[in-house]
Amino acid sequence: MNRLHRYLPATVWLKDYTRTDMQTDMMASVIVTIMLIPQSLAYAMLAGLPPAVGLYASILPLVAYALFGSSRTLAVGPVAVVSMMTGTAALQFAAPNTAEYLAIVILLAAISGLFLLLLGLFKLGFLANLLSHPVISGFISASAILIALGQVKHLLGIQASGRNLIDMMTTLWSNLSQTNFDTVLIGVSAVLALYLLRQHFKSILIMFGLSDHHAQLASKAGPVLVVVIMTLIVAAFQLNTEGVKVVGDVPSGFPPLALPKMDFQMAMDLLPAAILISIVGFVESVSVAQSFAAKRRQSIDPNQELVGLGAANLSSAFSGGFPVTGGFSRSVVSFDAGAKTPMTGVFTALLILLTLSFLTGAFYYLPKAVLAATIIVAVVQLIDLKSFIHIWRYSKQDVSALLATFFMVLFVGVEAGIITGVSLSLILFLWHASHPHIAVVGRVPGTEHFRNVERFQVETNCEVLTVRIDESLFFANARMLEDKINQLVSEQKQVKDVVLMCTAVNMIDASALESLEMICARLQSTDIRLHLSEVKGPVMDRLKGSAFISHLSGEIYLTQNQAFEALCHQEG
Amino acid sequence: MNRLHRYLPATVWLKDYTRTDMQTDMMASVIVTIMLIPQSLAYAMLAGLPPAVGLYASILPLVAYALFGSSRTLAVGPVAVVSMMTGTAALQFAAPNTAEYLAIVILLAAISGLFLLLLGLFKLGFLANLLSHPVISGFISASAILIALGQVKHLLGIQASGRNLIDMMTTLWSNLSQTNFDTVLIGVSAVLALYLLRQHFKSILIMFGLSDHHAQLASKAGPVLVVVIMTLIVAAFQLNTEGVKVVGDVPSGFPPLALPKMDFQMAMDLLPAAILISIVGFVESVSVAQSFAAKRRQSIDPNQELVGLGAANLSSAFSGGFPVTGGFSRSVVSFDAGAKTPMTGVFTALLILLTLSFLTGAFYYLPKAVLAATIIVAVVQLIDLKSFIHIWRYSKQDVSALLATFFMVLFVGVEAGIITGVSLSLILFLWHASHPHIAVVGRVPGTEHFRNVERFQVETNCEVLTVRIDESLFFANARMLEDKINQLVSEQKQVKDVVLMCTAVNMIDASALESLEMICARLQSTDIRLHLSEVKGPVMDRLKGSAFISHLSGEIYLTQNQAFEALCHQEG
Repeated sequence: MNRLHRYLPATVWLKDYTRTDMQTDMMASVIVTIMLIPQSLAYAMLAGLPPAVGLYASILPLVAYALFGSSRTLAVGPVAVVSMMTGTAALQFAAPNTAEYLAIVILLAAISGLFLLLLGLFKLGFLANLLSHPVISGFISASAILIALGQVKHLLGIQASGRNLIDMMTTLWSNLSQTNFDTVLIGVSAVLALYLLRQHFKSILIMFGLSDHHAQLASKAGPVLVVVIMTLIVAAFQLNTEGVKVVGDVPSGFPPLALPKMDFQMAMDLLPAAILISIVGFVESVSVAQSFAAKRRQSIDPNQELVGLGAANLSSAFSGGFPVTGGFSRSVVSFDAGAKTPMTGVFTALLILLTLSFLTGAFYYLPKAVLAATIIVAVVQLIDLKSFIHIWRYSKQDVSALLATFFMVLFVGVEAGIITGVSLSLILFLWHASHPHIAVVGRVPGTEHFRNVERFQVETNCEVLTVRIDESLFFANARMLEDKINQLVSEQKQVKDVVLMCTAVNMIDASALESLEMICARLQSTDIRLHLSEVKGPVMDRLKGSAFISHLSGEIYLTQNQAFEALCHQEG
Repeated sequence: MNRLHRYLPATVWLKDYTRTDMQTDMMASVIVTIMLIPQSLAYAMLAGLPPAVGLYASILPLVAYALFGSSRTLAVGPVAVVSMMTGTAALQFAAPNTAEYLAIVILLAAISGLFLLLLGLFKLGFLANLLSHPVISGFISASAILIALGQVKHLLGIQASGRNLIDMMTTLWSNLSQTNFDTVLIGVSAVLALYLLRQHFKSILIMFGLSDHHAQLASKAGPVLVVVIMTLIVAAFQLNTEGVKVVGDVPSGFPPLALPKMDFQMAMDLLPAAILISIVGFVESVSVAQSFAAKRRQSIDPNQELVGLGAANLSSAFSGGFPVTGGFSRSVVSFDAGAKTPMTGVFTALLILLTLSFLTGAFYYLPKAVLAATIIVAVVQLIDLKSFIHIWRYSKQDVSALLATFFMVLFVGVEAGIITGVSLSLILFLWHASHPHIAVVGRVPGTEHFRNVERFQVETNCEVLTVRIDESLFFANARMLEDKINQLVSEQKQVKDVVLMCTAVNMIDASALESLEMICARLQSTDIRLHLSEVKGPVMDRLKGSAFISHLSGEIYLTQNQAFEALCHQEG
């Protein structure tokens, strides 16, 4: 039964599910649905897909996540960054709005789902840690700019495409003469309206007497209001005949249930993109889930989150959808609307299914410029200037990883940006670990404390050299330790004993062990003994059986003071 | 003047160079030359090159290293593993013993030299730390097997080739019927003779009355003796007319000085191989240099070593040679022969130049099977079973990196092996860092010490949760800390204060800082305060200006005991 709980978290909360829970969850699902429908249509457009695909991706994935996900609050579905990455990846292999393009996107969701599932089952979620915060921040900011810029064509009613800033600007510029002014009027007013509503709608609602909580909730309906009004205007004036592009016919009925077409070569070609989409989606999703879990003093299991998101993506692929993940804004709405359990997701899926069955006609006159406006207003907030300033102040190394990612995404592409950022983070970390703080220490007179000789007035002995290493010893700094000890001993010719003080050494890997053996042997060849002091318990446990300890020329002292006392008296 | 010393280490020792130094250096160079000549011929053959190229690579590079290298003892020139890597890389683009092949190899030396030089000038030597000890060990063992197997064709007098074990075995097997029995006889007796000499020659020489030191030195001439005797036998019986392949004509005269032919596309294609050759060569060389520096209480500067090796490879390229690096066995000979300064290298270069000018005729009858035998006997020792056993006992994680590298090199190729090994080391390290030891601690009664609640009987307070993290906080474990604190707080509902005890935190990067801010904000949303205790000086210095400290809901305590006292009394 415990295993069932672990692999199917839904069994935990379903057990205690009450009628009251059901009522609040249903209420919340109505609000989430109202918000999710225009988002789904917009993000499908962003990924270069027919609008219906966005709705398909908002049905089964929600149910799958409700069953397998570990967060009680997370709302999954299409999100901006993942949709853009999907579009960019698919564009390399087919033209948008073709059958091949759709097949590729579905395959992408399938591979991505499978990859997430495998990561989860093998508990490899830690691999997502490769994406450091500066890399994510730079990536999201640059993606937001690319997404916003990619939607400008819809605001102007022209054709344009491109995978990076320069391509996009060039194609936009060369088609600028074809601008449709009705479209511009609608698009720009939608952007302004959305922007103003976002800023002031809540206060206006409060002025009209709504409570803070209700105003907060109702304000989320603002974008929907703009979408409805603009659609009505286009319908009333038949602006679609004047060149304003509209969503048009959306096929009604159930999502097409089918296995994705397996094309092994294509799957291999898509793998790198699928891996990046999965990891970016997972990282975004898990941080949203963590925020909400903390608010309710719940906890989430990152590996189970991988399983949940994997199941969501696989079911998206099986029902003609595209890659999905947990979204921040819809999770906020769901949480604020009082959603108690993941059943909210199931109810939302049912409501979207109903919409797809009976209400697709309502989207006919919805102008694409308005969808573009909702995307632009949503993503502009993702541009993360605050993190940039914080990181800039805190660490020049971290900010360089952020900037490298940002500019690579903007000027080369999404994949190049992430790979650059991750490589740079690793190299900078390695640089840091390769240059550990190593101090020669001496005893503070009258105490048993040992401090850096360069910072404090301490007692030393010219025949005993004590070195404190402020880092775990592993392959990145093993060789540096050899250099450093060599150098110190070559500078201080009378030394007869070297003591390594290991207070901050949390681990010694095989490379470092080999280096310690080398250090010991080299010191011994010039009649210097090597000692250790203050070795931590777990480190000592592993050292015990090793050849290093049996060949060690000196002693292992419990405390540095014991080492100092013993060696100085010996020499004396 | 100090700058000159740094960039041209030769200026330091040349200043005090005496006539006595010169005499010992000259003596040593004679012994090194005798050993180096057959090695140079053999390693040129191993790289698929004409024998003369091996001699070219043993002239100017020695002079360049003497000027720019920081080790007083290192002897550079062609070495087995680098020669094999060179051959493997060149084989992808041309057939051995053609003009294109030679041009490619020279270009490889040039790129490799340039790369090493740049690494050195930009002080990027730490990047070599990516090669952990287990990866190097697995790589060298597998390479030794490939090299030995690659020489079997010369022992049998047949044709064979291949980049990995299976290719080699297959081509050997299919050509086995063409075996030349005279060649086998010579080759196998050479292997046996070399093996026995290596084991027993020194003791025999001591029996004949030589001192230990002189026997040690003379024993290094053993292989040369075998080479000379076998050459005489072939010449006497004219075995070259019976199908025994010999070195044949070696063009006499100076090495051809010329700029390498620049072919940008080819240079790009060769770059990955050149980078691996450079790094492997550097890692081998620097560890040899370190061993000898330690014996004389000297120290070496890894970045200056890069400059020295870079200069050596560039000058190899300019004089028709192939990639070189510091060799272990010849450095041992040089050291044992009493070489005092790098001038030994200059004298050796002169002697090889003399050989090339006047003695090339002596190599005519030298059988290739004997060169193959010297290679085989030399590389078989590189198979590092001892390290494997040590690492196996010490760490299953590290041994998996070793085995992955070993089998990938053997069955796929050198480059795939190194890339797999490095990636696996990084992933395993990341796994380790992502799962830091995090302990809930309490106070040992009657003391100010705090210990793991699971291991010790300690005092705790149900409203104060103290967590000790035994690792620096950075991107690899930042998210894990969020999970862990979330989970602990969700399990212990009365908690009002969380204290992070930072004794072992040597660094907090921007990702971890962001996570700490998130943790603080989430805890605050459920009215829990976050405190820090025992933050190290350098870590605190950087934290001071950050937003995290200004938003911190709790206090920063100097000691954990102060934190515990203050918070428990507050609650009480």
